[in-house]
Amino acid sequence: MLLLQQTTLVPKLLLFSKSDFSFKPCSSSLSTRLSLMDKHTKSSSLKQFQSPILACQASTDTHDTSFRKDDLPVHGVSEVIVGVLGGGQLGRMLCQAASEMAIKVMVLDPLTNCPASAIAYDHMVGSFDDSATVQEFAKRCGVLTVEIEHVDAATMEKLEQQGVDCQPKASTIRIIQDKHLQKVHFSRHGIPLPDFMQIDDLEGAKRAGDLFGYPLMLKSKRLAYDGRGNAVAKSEDELSSAVNALGGFDRGLYVEKWTPFVKELAVIVARGRDNSISCYPVVETIHKENICHVVKAPADIPWKIRKLATDVAHKAVSSLEGAGVFAVELFLTKDGQILLNEVAPRPHNSGHHTIESCYTSQFEQHLRAVLGLPLGDPSMKTPAAIMYNLLGEDEGEPGFHLAHQLIGRALNIQGASVHWYDKPEMRKQRKMGHITIAGPSMGIVEAQLKSMLKEEGSESQTAVKPRVGIIMGSDSDLPIMKDAARILTLFGVPHEVRIVSAHRTPEMMFSYALSAQDQGIQIIIAGAGGAAHLPG
Amino acid sequence: MLLLQQTTLVPKLLLFSKSDFSFKPCSSSLSTRLSLMDKHTKSSSLKQFQSPILACQASTDTHDTSFRKDDLPVHGVSEVIVGVLGGGQLGRMLCQAASEMAIKVMVLDPLTNCPASAIAYDHMVGSFDDSATVQEFAKRCGVLTVEIEHVDAATMEKLEQQGVDCQPKASTIRIIQDKHLQKVHFSRHGIPLPDFMQIDDLEGAKRAGDLFGYPLMLKSKRLAYDGRGNAVAKSEDELSSAVNALGGFDRGLYVEKWTPFVKELAVIVARGRDNSISCYPVVETIHKENICHVVKAPADIPWKIRKLATDVAHKAVSSLEGAGVFAVELFLTKDGQILLNEVAPRPHNSGHHTIESCYTSQFEQHLRAVLGLPLGDPSMKTPAAIMYNLLGEDEGEPGFHLAHQLIGRALNIQGASVHWYDKPEMRKQRKMGHITIAGPSMGIVEAQLKSMLKEEGSESQTAVKPRVGIIMGSDSDLPIMKDAARILTLFGVPHEVRIVSAHRTPEMMFSYALSAQDQGIQIIIAGAGGAAHLPG
Repeated sequence: MLLLQQTTLVPKLLLFSKSDFSFKPCSSSLSTRLSLMDKHTKSSSLKQFQSPILACQASTDTHDTSFRKDDLPVHGVSEVIVGVLGGGQLGRMLCQAASEMAIKVMVLDPLTNCPASAIAYDHMVGSFDDSATVQEFAKRCGVLTVEIEHVDAATMEKLEQQGVDCQPKASTIRIIQDKHLQKVHFSRHGIPLPDFMQIDDLEGAKRAGDLFGYPLMLKSKRLAYDGRGNAVAKSEDELSSAVNALGGFDRGLYVEKWTPFVKELAVIVARGRDNSISCYPVVETIHKENICHVVKAPADIPWKIRKLATDVAHKAVSSLEGAGVFAVELFLTKDGQILLNEVAPRPHNSGHHTIESCYTSQFEQHLRAVLGLPLGDPSMKTPAAIMYNLLGEDEGEPGFHLAHQLIGRALNIQGASVHWYDKPEMRKQRKMGHITIAGPSMGIVEAQLKSMLKEEGSESQTAVKPRVGIIMGSDSDLPIMKDAARILTLFGVPHEVRIVSAHRTPEMMFSYALSAQDQGIQIIIAGAGGAAHLPG
Repeated sequence: MLLLQQTTLVPKLLLFSKSDFSFKPCSSSLSTRLSLMDKHTKSSSLKQFQSPILACQASTDTHDTSFRKDDLPVHGVSEVIVGVLGGGQLGRMLCQAASEMAIKVMVLDPLTNCPASAIAYDHMVGSFDDSATVQEFAKRCGVLTVEIEHVDAATMEKLEQQGVDCQPKASTIRIIQDKHLQKVHFSRHGIPLPDFMQIDDLEGAKRAGDLFGYPLMLKSKRLAYDGRGNAVAKSEDELSSAVNALGGFDRGLYVEKWTPFVKELAVIVARGRDNSISCYPVVETIHKENICHVVKAPADIPWKIRKLATDVAHKAVSSLEGAGVFAVELFLTKDGQILLNEVAPRPHNSGHHTIESCYTSQFEQHLRAVLGLPLGDPSMKTPAAIMYNLLGEDEGEPGFHLAHQLIGRALNIQGASVHWYDKPEMRKQRKMGHITIAGPSMGIVEAQLKSMLKEEGSESQTAVKPRVGIIMGSDSDLPIMKDAARILTLFGVPHEVRIVSAHRTPEMMFSYALSAQDQGIQIIIAGAGGAAHLPG
């Protein structure tokens, strides 16, 4: 089936045959604000007119004549160029995932030094909200996708009519970029969500207040993200200032009934071109000032809730069109209800942990989905992971300094992986990078996060370094070893506890014991089995 | 300590201050065969003379005046540019690891489209064996390292005298690039290794044959890799043809006593700038026609052997100078001896699995080491992994076609990650990519590899897709469930067995059960605990 689907995509590739691409100055037909950063054509003067697409170099080979156009050979995983509208950190991480499989990703972004620029196969500098630009960009791609939903949906619809392969579909982008339309859509499909109502004037807002009570959540329909576009009115008196804060009724507003949730959850759902659907484990997202701050994977919730959340996410994505990964944000209410908050038609902050903790990351999964490759395994390969966003804590250099300090501590934390998006400017609350800590249990990764966040100068660096390590075959050994840990605490001996699952005891215990010995850590072992064989 | 070490490196960074770099045509002082692929300066005409190094952009900011030169702010993980001699697949994977942390890696490689080129911060096209080229390259880097040991050691020694920071040290490269000198060195340091002897003429070769017996292994001292530079003489009669096969005595030859090993093992060892040493788990390497074919992590060997192998690797690397990761290749003999085969002063094919299966990959570890950052956790985050090299099976297009078929099957295998190096030319036995299968036990990943390697048309695709999944809390449930599996086999029902460790039962079982249900797989569960809560 893979090969069949690849074949159906191949004709798109013909757009890139040597004669079509032909090293013309790429920006000739475009406005001045659109310049092309085609690294490969750029360097062609030095590379003696090397083909911009390595695959096409084969056309100078003697072998090439034996292939008809519809039988184009594929070198590696896929030759189809993936075009991404937007080149922020999500585009950057898509490029990183693509690079492992040597899949070519082009990004369209107005900023010359956007995060994805340095790693993308190509970066077209231009607005993803400008019709002519997007059309020109689409010509160069085998499949068009997004890393941001605030793109020009009308242009995407036109492109689809012209036969351009957009994944997910323009209809999905149109529904999702208008948060009110999104709610109407999901409501029609029987997805549980908080009550909502469009408001066109103050009278309407008051009626909504009477109906839903206060506090009342007012929201902009469009261009809303990271809490921007939300305003709370605690009483009827505050309605008009909330409306003003959102830019007035002309912006297009609606209200949502206040949802006192106990947890915010999220599920990354992937859908293939064959409509196969695959769900990642449910995670808990913790926001700070409306911006994603921490993600815990998996979420600590009962089975029933987990199943319910996954079902709602599955159903929500099933109601949309096109391939790719989608993030479904959910509220868990006190009475055990799952309500849909919103959906993003792209990789999402709540799925960053998948890079380290799942067999297939959300970024690789998105590429597999839009290219019609089989979906990968979304299950976790580590029992627990925490993602911590590196948000700008200050403007400019002082902000960089604070981020660098935190990164320095993260590099000393076992199981921590540092991601830095290389944004040239530091701003308060801006997403500059993230840190994922993966490990053998949520308790352990939470403890690691805690020591990472200890302030500089609080001796955290030395306190973290254990002198004694306690290894156990499973949780069942914990009661026995708890006392040992307590005595060590009593005598102020820094120590760490590692639980190594029974079936992997031999390898993992030994590996840990050796690396611990290297660091001068003494080892205490609980549990039977392979442990008995351990030296010293 | 991290911050201190960073500070000591910072002066190197001054080489890149705006005035030094200054947008001069980079190749002005270089020979014609050396052209500079500086993506950032290349595109500067379009980007209106944007600085080639984002960090230096700060010098146009108002903040900058408040920083003295020795107090340069660090944006992210590190500002030091890592220069790598060589831009093959190892350089490429170094760049991929660097990209996550936004560390800037420049490569020096003679091929314009070498694997690392597309992802490197910069690619200088030139020979890493040419003194003038390497010197020019070194000026642009904060620290100089290698992805191949066959570089110009004399130039590196000269550069070190001039204060260039080479990691590992030139002395290490000099020792390792001459396999005979390497053996002399390790022998002097008490590392166990097969008997060896330099041979200068046929008489010497015969004397060696008398001493060591036949078959006798003849080896070139230099430029030997992937079995090239090795020749076997089964008897004294074959000595002279073996010598000729290696290019004659003028090439510099030596002999090694034949080692009838039971397994080949390897250990990746990392050494930080502070001489801290950290060892990855011992792996088994399986060669085919002298080229690495399969790597199993961890190796299936007794504890004592594991400890012995790690000790020998640790000791070998301790005897060398400089930071970075080193691969120590070992023989395990019938009588349980560990003998050193050879050492590579760089990331290595035997460590590719670490990308998916260890908390810190060998590539990130190498960057951490040479930059003076704390070493990461080398332990495995999945209990087992197998790496399978994608070697060219045929020349040109037919070879690409075969590789693409195998990749297509790999994409259907749970836990498999595909790496493609994007080499423009396919050649027989050439390393074109690799596939790592990570999973919950060696038995399972071995079974996955087996089904991946089934020939096209053998119904492997459908046979792989299980209809029944058996989940267990641990190996201890295996005896109980073995019968269930046997009955399924009897009735020809495709099934798969998943062992989910006891302490992570709830999350993993549920995650697996849900994704299995999505695929229409029926679930049988063994073991107590969280399993009881599972739906359906």
